[in-house]
Amino acid sequence: MTSSAYDPANIFGKILRGEIPCHRVYEDAHTLAFMDVMPQADGHTLVVPKRPSRGLLDADPAVFAPLFATVQRVAAAAKAAFAADGVAVYQYNEAAAGQTVFHLHVHVLPRHEGAAPRRHAGGMADPAVLAAHAERIRAALDA
Amino acid sequence: MTSSAYDPANIFGKILRGEIPCHRVYEDAHTLAFMDVMPQADGHTLVVPKRPSRGLLDADPAVFAPLFATVQRVAAAAKAAFAADGVAVYQYNEAAAGQTVFHLHVHVLPRHEGAAPRRHAGGMADPAVLAAHAERIRAALDA
Repeated sequence: MTSSAYDPANIFGKILRGEIPCHRVYEDAHTLAFMDVMPQADGHTLVVPKRPSRGLLDADPAVFAPLFATVQRVAAAAKAAFAADGVAVYQYNEAAAGQTVFHLHVHVLPRHEGAAPRRHAGGMADPAVLAAHAERIRAALDA
Repeated sequence: MTSSAYDPANIFGKILRGEIPCHRVYEDAHTLAFMDVMPQADGHTLVVPKRPSRGLLDADPAVFAPLFATVQRVAAAAKAAFAADGVAVYQYNEAAAGQTVFHLHVHVLPRHEGAAPRRHAGGMADPAVLAAHAERIRAALDA
């Protein structure tokens, strides 16, 4: 068993506190969506609740409604922005399941027919590309 | 684009109407959880909302709170029942993303360190094994 308490020094905690930047896609009172810096597909976006928890298991169930409402909005916008054929949603709890940052987060990946997603936590993307992709998704959210 | 309307003849619609059986893990007014018959890991459970939608994108956002409350409960129980190190949660929208049954569903997979999940939609499991696994998760839910 590797589970333990929430550590506010995690990267997403720092992003939520504005201590480090992100390529923001969407924000409301309860959630923040931003580009994954190691995207498995173009448009790969992360959605996090502002209320801290390590993962899904220790989350206050009150976060689920606003969290997945944002996932739904971002998924629709990312699908439109990248003319995708589908959207995959992943949520990992603990390192054995692929979790690498220990603040609850939901992966939203636009998927195209015949294109396998790239490796999780692979290489860093060009920040200019991520900024352009965030802009495309924001534009689709506003459409 | 492959999206279209909800077809009530899908397998999970039939399970929800009691037209075909399932290895039930949990049920409440809004959700049903049952064993995936092509498990990617021991304890692989599916959680569905009773309210029909094809996927996440066309779902009434009102389903998210009860759906993910059940996912959380089932994830904790499956992790305990299989002494797992983590839990992966997958949700696929449209065939390009891996969706094979077109009623919104969430995959809950217990994960162990060093063990990769088996292929999605691989072979059918022995029904007696699935029944025993469902019983283990139900026991953990009641614990």
